[in-house]
Amino acid sequence: MKKLFTTICLAAAAFAGVNAQQALWGAAPVVSPDIHEDNTVTFRFKAPKAVRVQVTGDFLPTQKVEIPNFGTYDAPGVVDLVEGKDGVWEYTTPEPLKPELYSYSFNVDGLRVMDPSNVYAIRDVATVTNVFLIGGERADLYKVNDVPHGTVSRMWYDSPELGMKRRLTVYTPAGYETSGKKYPVFYLLHGAGGDEEAWIALGRTAQILDNLIAQGKAQPMIVVMTNGNASQEAAPGESKDGFVAPSMSMQNSKDNKFMEGSFERSFKDVVKFVDKTFRTKANKANRAIAGLSMGGFHSMHISKYYPDMFDYIGLFSAAIMPSNNTSCDVYTDIEGKLAIQFAKKPALYYIAIGNTDFLYKANVEYRQLLDSKGYKYEYYETGEGHIWKNWRIYLTEFAPKLFKK
Amino acid sequence: MKKLFTTICLAAAAFAGVNAQQALWGAAPVVSPDIHEDNTVTFRFKAPKAVRVQVTGDFLPTQKVEIPNFGTYDAPGVVDLVEGKDGVWEYTTPEPLKPELYSYSFNVDGLRVMDPSNVYAIRDVATVTNVFLIGGERADLYKVNDVPHGTVSRMWYDSPELGMKRRLTVYTPAGYETSGKKYPVFYLLHGAGGDEEAWIALGRTAQILDNLIAQGKAQPMIVVMTNGNASQEAAPGESKDGFVAPSMSMQNSKDNKFMEGSFERSFKDVVKFVDKTFRTKANKANRAIAGLSMGGFHSMHISKYYPDMFDYIGLFSAAIMPSNNTSCDVYTDIEGKLAIQFAKKPALYYIAIGNTDFLYKANVEYRQLLDSKGYKYEYYETGEGHIWKNWRIYLTEFAPKLFKK
Repeated sequence: MKKLFTTICLAAAAFAGVNAQQALWGAAPVVSPDIHEDNTVTFRFKAPKAVRVQVTGDFLPTQKVEIPNFGTYDAPGVVDLVEGKDGVWEYTTPEPLKPELYSYSFNVDGLRVMDPSNVYAIRDVATVTNVFLIGGERADLYKVNDVPHGTVSRMWYDSPELGMKRRLTVYTPAGYETSGKKYPVFYLLHGAGGDEEAWIALGRTAQILDNLIAQGKAQPMIVVMTNGNASQEAAPGESKDGFVAPSMSMQNSKDNKFMEGSFERSFKDVVKFVDKTFRTKANKANRAIAGLSMGGFHSMHISKYYPDMFDYIGLFSAAIMPSNNTSCDVYTDIEGKLAIQFAKKPALYYIAIGNTDFLYKANVEYRQLLDSKGYKYEYYETGEGHIWKNWRIYLTEFAPKLFKK
Repeated sequence: MKKLFTTICLAAAAFAGVNAQQALWGAAPVVSPDIHEDNTVTFRFKAPKAVRVQVTGDFLPTQKVEIPNFGTYDAPGVVDLVEGKDGVWEYTTPEPLKPELYSYSFNVDGLRVMDPSNVYAIRDVATVTNVFLIGGERADLYKVNDVPHGTVSRMWYDSPELGMKRRLTVYTPAGYETSGKKYPVFYLLHGAGGDEEAWIALGRTAQILDNLIAQGKAQPMIVVMTNGNASQEAAPGESKDGFVAPSMSMQNSKDNKFMEGSFERSFKDVVKFVDKTFRTKANKANRAIAGLSMGGFHSMHISKYYPDMFDYIGLFSAAIMPSNNTSCDVYTDIEGKLAIQFAKKPALYYIAIGNTDFLYKANVEYRQLLDSKGYKYEYYETGEGHIWKNWRIYLTEFAPKLFKK
């Protein structure tokens, strides 16, 4: 046996030592982003031949940008890096960054480039962006902490209403597998351009729920993250359509069943599957539904279309706007359906939005309607606009209010 | 209600139409990779100011490269793109590509850059690389096809032996949730630098199992993908260590319990958790273990250390090499332990390797040892070396042989 193990020393060294691919293709030992103890952050990028290297991201103050045929846009700021030794460019934030999950990318001589020193990236619709996390305060809820962790499952359910099998993401709380207990269920819906991966990736849902439950601030609950694009089986790359290029326009035509009622009507299929597959408390008092943007639109319409299904409703930066199919029974007689829903006194009807959101005015008008009818709701307003930072905040605010009755 | 819906037309248009971020940061409507009907592929990259744009990837023939202090390395080939209209550079493969899951990246004036037109990328150790899939033949097993899909869960188990909670990935076959049946279990182990995400991402395990089961070629089974780094709770980014930069060296010291026996000895904790948590056929005849490279090393040692646990053993490009702790009881008296294991006549002992693998000679010597003792095994040899292409092939060959007795 000794002989067997002597002839392969060189191979062993090669095996355990050097990443040849890396040595070849230039991922030098550059540390970026380098988060210092005081929460200032240094970004580094090795580009010896570059003329100009910039970094952009939501850690910088926004700047007003004029986009042709679009209007004014609050774009992330841009700053220059300075070239140092060995062609490594560098930028350090002048001030410590506030606790938050941030995203950024580099721009090298006009080319958008991801950070080769950072493997952490998240797709938002069609754009993949590097991310980093500054802990502390609320952002500690976004971290993986040393607490019991739930299970995250990607699975498929049957929707007879839509005539297809569809994918969804399910969070079950720590201990679910062996507790034998039944749990309440929170249905959490994404916005336009998103899918069943959005809340778990950009929303940090598993981390937020793990932490809130471990702190005793939220009840142990199942969270179900659906795909709200009624013509789509699954997130891009996860269906028989293959590695298609995702785009907003995928969800933006009548052909693609965008905001025309199918998804809302089919929601009974999701609930039926979940109640059959998991140990749920299968009643209204133990079901919540909330969504961001288009998911807020869906949550508003689903909860009044099925007024006996959900006791907790959350509209996060909700797209209060006309549907694409006003004759659909989901969207007819909105005021009549709201009257029925509120007569049944939901345990919580919650509206949250940022004060610079382009949907702010529509939400003001929606609240005026609710006020004029005397319908009770909770309202939570933040700064800023239609961004994931706000949706993570709303999730951390909303989840602790659920199933406490 | 009409008034509510009239004031927000501009907002609605903004909401549904334009991805302003995209408009700003240059992800123009460039299609790449563009897979043509005949399976030639065009790569495109928009870089109006660039002097030279190249593409590299495993779709090109390898080239010998000399790396200082390393030796000769079979590096992926590199070709130049040609600049065309609007600064869009282009390269089309002269021949159709064979069915396979390929990876690639661009090199723009010396800078490694990912493809901004392709959101599909996979991390391999510390490097993130774009991928695309050419269907047909065996590679159809790597696609998401219109077949029943299993569930993929990320969950945490307790390892008293290692003194920590640890993460693993579990595939349960389509129908598991409602069938009430018990299933056999296949434990599938990654290589050095990998973790519990490697087989599901790079190995396409869920797609391969979905397809093999749907075709009736493999038994419905549970597949458990562990984390083989005994000092690590979870894949990078998924533990309390936060968004750390992964590297090979993380798994490459005695402190980090690299090939020193802890993981092998703790495997009983994994099996115990799985048998407690899932509906398993909890006996030797219904358990398989296989792994690639370091995972082959682990599978070899675990299966002889626990000779009554696994009836099916697979060594894929196995790291037949000395351990870092020869005094550990896992590694002592290897020949004596093999004698006990083979006296119990495993249903299948399977060895697969590529004929240019740096571990080829070590595997020849290991087979000579088995031959000299008259121990039965199946051997499968492919071309090429220590690459994921081969490990996907071995999985598609090995899984159909399991649990057929």
